[in-house]
Amino acid sequence: MVEIRKEVTKNEWSIIAPTRSDRPFDFSTELRKANKENVQDCPFCPGNESKTPPEIYAIREGEESKESDWKVRVFPNKYPALDRYGTASVIESDLFESMGGFGYHEVVAETPKHNGSLAELEIDKIELVIRTYIERSTELANDPEIDYVSIFRNQGKEAGASLSHPHSQIIATPFVPNMSRTEYREAGAFHDQKRECLYCRLMEAERADGQRTVLENDGFFVFVPFGARFPYETHLYPKTHRSSFPEIGAGEIGQMAEALKLTLRAMSNHFTDFFPYNYSIHTAAPVYLRNRKDLDLKKSYHWHLEIIPRLTTPAGFERGTGNYINIVSPERAARKLRNALN
Amino acid sequence: MVEIRKEVTKNEWSIIAPTRSDRPFDFSTELRKANKENVQDCPFCPGNESKTPPEIYAIREGEESKESDWKVRVFPNKYPALDRYGTASVIESDLFESMGGFGYHEVVAETPKHNGSLAELEIDKIELVIRTYIERSTELANDPEIDYVSIFRNQGKEAGASLSHPHSQIIATPFVPNMSRTEYREAGAFHDQKRECLYCRLMEAERADGQRTVLENDGFFVFVPFGARFPYETHLYPKTHRSSFPEIGAGEIGQMAEALKLTLRAMSNHFTDFFPYNYSIHTAAPVYLRNRKDLDLKKSYHWHLEIIPRLTTPAGFERGTGNYINIVSPERAARKLRNALN
Repeated sequence: MVEIRKEVTKNEWSIIAPTRSDRPFDFSTELRKANKENVQDCPFCPGNESKTPPEIYAIREGEESKESDWKVRVFPNKYPALDRYGTASVIESDLFESMGGFGYHEVVAETPKHNGSLAELEIDKIELVIRTYIERSTELANDPEIDYVSIFRNQGKEAGASLSHPHSQIIATPFVPNMSRTEYREAGAFHDQKRECLYCRLMEAERADGQRTVLENDGFFVFVPFGARFPYETHLYPKTHRSSFPEIGAGEIGQMAEALKLTLRAMSNHFTDFFPYNYSIHTAAPVYLRNRKDLDLKKSYHWHLEIIPRLTTPAGFERGTGNYINIVSPERAARKLRNALN
Repeated sequence: MVEIRKEVTKNEWSIIAPTRSDRPFDFSTELRKANKENVQDCPFCPGNESKTPPEIYAIREGEESKESDWKVRVFPNKYPALDRYGTASVIESDLFESMGGFGYHEVVAETPKHNGSLAELEIDKIELVIRTYIERSTELANDPEIDYVSIFRNQGKEAGASLSHPHSQIIATPFVPNMSRTEYREAGAFHDQKRECLYCRLMEAERADGQRTVLENDGFFVFVPFGARFPYETHLYPKTHRSSFPEIGAGEIGQMAEALKLTLRAMSNHFTDFFPYNYSIHTAAPVYLRNRKDLDLKKSYHWHLEIIPRLTTPAGFERGTGNYINIVSPERAARKLRNALN
């Protein structure tokens, strides 16, 4: 049974999900090595739709296409961190606060090709993945018990991926994540003081400086942050100020697909194909927007995407302090990535 | 050149230390496999004292012992994350705040035996390691530019250790770590409300419940926290309320050595010898004690040690939200560890 518990000394919610320990892991088997478009034993490959829980959403060519003719396909995670049958009722205790493991955990199969890679998809195919993120996060945010929708991607075993078929994940939680609370607080404090958006201001300053810029197109600005916690950590900011990802403009989707593809391909060129990384979308919490705390957050917060390559292992210092030692200077990382663009 | 920079959107200091990328790594070589007490190429083995920077501190048998006759030995890290020649002067800018990489980074060789393990040392030998932690952290905290002294241990490549000879590390920083600030804030809020120490109260409640207790002796209480972020995460609390580790009572040192040994050995028994883990000591920040913010912190905060086995890989959800999915229930972890005590 899944449970969400508060670590009282740190005021952090943890998801206790013993069911997750049963999930399969294909990296030690043939599946990983299989450099084939379709693999019989992969539950995410076309033709194996019956091996996943019932489909939630898919993009297919035409109305009459076969079940296996999908371009992008979403289904519940078979080993969910949270599930809709949990209960969001909170047991309050000053020391032992908890709630049932209510929430949603979905898998987005990004391409039918088992040996595909997000960075190598055509831009219009990446657009379909982004449209799927928008569709699903809008839907999940409509559930009044859901506080936040987290969209993320793990590539490679070192980044925590357990299956190699290209996929993203969406976890909708009945709490606002730690890092979001921190980002809202900092953005809010900046806005209170300067009457402008921290992220808009930062983008302007980074563009003027240029040393940490990776690329930009009409819609997005991509850079390595000045205080990057991880080597080659890279952020994608939409140029148009919006607090919430699902409100992205129709014209921005293609720009986002292009910026994401170019950035990931520069990393592939610089490291190696299938280098391990995580990315996640940081957005305004639906619960705050619903509860009309929106006025401030809409002005002060700016949704964005953060890519974190997994090149080093955080150790005791990081685990004990929550601060990071980054062994690659942000300026060097940005220069290397600019040189690897093609 | 090392630099400490603020990540403005998260209000976190990051240490940018490109020099760290040059450090040697022995896990892929003979050194790791060498199941020998002394290894010629290991810079931490007795007889190789000249391969480390000049010794800072050591415990030797008698006054006239040879240089290589040490029991515990401390020297500067050859590839420091911070060093005493940096400058702690802050460059303030609303977006790009930074300071030079001033600080200390020391290595504590815990035993002369290359193939030793902290869990297998005799209790009086572990006491020497703890005495060394006290000695060094007291000394480092005397530097008025130092805000915090972090003591930690990495075992195994998966836990970020780069050399296999048993050792701990000490990093003294000119800033108060993220996690410490969070812990002080939560402990302070609890104390304001209840007029008691959160940790003392928690220890009492955990003992009464018993499900998450691993062990206790006269001086220490060891348990898996209710909201544990990581599988088998285990905390050691001193029973006597003290905010600051170096103020540990003389009589408590042996108790701490015993509790630490029994806990690590239960983990070794349950997992395997040399299972990967980190531990870190969480303590009141010297800068606050010096600045006479001590009155509140002394009452509200309670130093302790946190052990985090490295059994799973945090992935995109954890990186993007700062919350953790733990696949082992705290009650089960505690039961398994209790059963593995011997």
